[in-house]
Amino acid sequence: MKKPLDFYFDFSSPYAYLASTRIEALGQELGRDVVWRPILLGPMFQAMGSGPLVDIPLKGAYAERDFARSAQLFDIPYQRPDPFPIATVGAARATLFLRAQGGNLAAAFAHRVFDAYYVQGQDIRDAAILRAQAQAIGFDPAALEQGMADPAIKAALKQDVADAMGRGVFGSPFVFVDDEPFWGFDRFDHIRRWAARQAG
Amino acid sequence: MKKPLDFYFDFSSPYAYLASTRIEALGQELGRDVVWRPILLGPMFQAMGSGPLVDIPLKGAYAERDFARSAQLFDIPYQRPDPFPIATVGAARATLFLRAQGGNLAAAFAHRVFDAYYVQGQDIRDAAILRAQAQAIGFDPAALEQGMADPAIKAALKQDVADAMGRGVFGSPFVFVDDEPFWGFDRFDHIRRWAARQAG
Repeated sequence: MKKPLDFYFDFSSPYAYLASTRIEALGQELGRDVVWRPILLGPMFQAMGSGPLVDIPLKGAYAERDFARSAQLFDIPYQRPDPFPIATVGAARATLFLRAQGGNLAAAFAHRVFDAYYVQGQDIRDAAILRAQAQAIGFDPAALEQGMADPAIKAALKQDVADAMGRGVFGSPFVFVDDEPFWGFDRFDHIRRWAARQAG
Repeated sequence: MKKPLDFYFDFSSPYAYLASTRIEALGQELGRDVVWRPILLGPMFQAMGSGPLVDIPLKGAYAERDFARSAQLFDIPYQRPDPFPIATVGAARATLFLRAQGGNLAAAFAHRVFDAYYVQGQDIRDAAILRAQAQAIGFDPAALEQGMADPAIKAALKQDVADAMGRGVFGSPFVFVDDEPFWGFDRFDHIRRWAARQAG
């Protein structure tokens, strides 16, 4: 049995959104499940002495253009969210809590949250928006809100971000195939090539 | 007649080296010539408040691994150069000077310089190494050295870097198809998709 893909993402990363629409198909190609691992870029930016992409002179303007163009070239619906970037700690805690409930809940929820932000233009910092996504996948919204506020979940997310950094994660999306690290939606093709060579 | 691809590169960029091995094939696919435009990343890093990729915590270690793995996955010979990164102003001036001599000189020279650094492990800051590449493509090494020292060439490179930044260039490699900007070897596939949509 092959190890699942570890899919690290921050909801405030457009490239993570693009990747989220294709990660399960990639997993199927490789015969692997996907573990959805919400992280926060803030502490990583801090470690690197950097900040949000769109705030960087020159690079920021290009990034905005590349987000929209990449979506278009891969036929993925995308509306530039506003405000952007935003704090995604609530959405990350909610996803982590749902993963602990088992089944496919975390993936189903994460898809809806990405869609709410990058397609519907909803503010995913809003607890009511997050509750609505839980309800839509058949999970009790009140239980979600309680789970998000659980100190154990808060601590677990903090630990997950630290563990991710310990493993070398510094951006979003970030995928591990076994212990091989790949950063970016634009590395999906590299993952395919890499996996083919491992198999061959 | 379609406009040529503008191929901006710093010789100290491994991703530019990878791109240099494929840019002409890409041009042929698109029915476009290639203009080889040497630039220097230094002033761009300064504008962005950043520095060489490999010096950045977390990201640097990944970048080193990704250079070698990308080369391997695309079947491009690559030996991690040492020292790295290096100042490439001499090689850039030489390429710019050769471009002014017309023909295919700049491309032929640039290919050899990339190969000297990333395959042969030669120090391309060394004027003797640059002269040897000129000689290998049938260009008088003494004339090259004179050209590199020409104040007009020095000024032209400075102006080219400023013009590139004015056009939005902040990294290497950087390709314009007409006025559409693409950053990175990993955007070659996006260029193909984009061009197909323009044509369609």
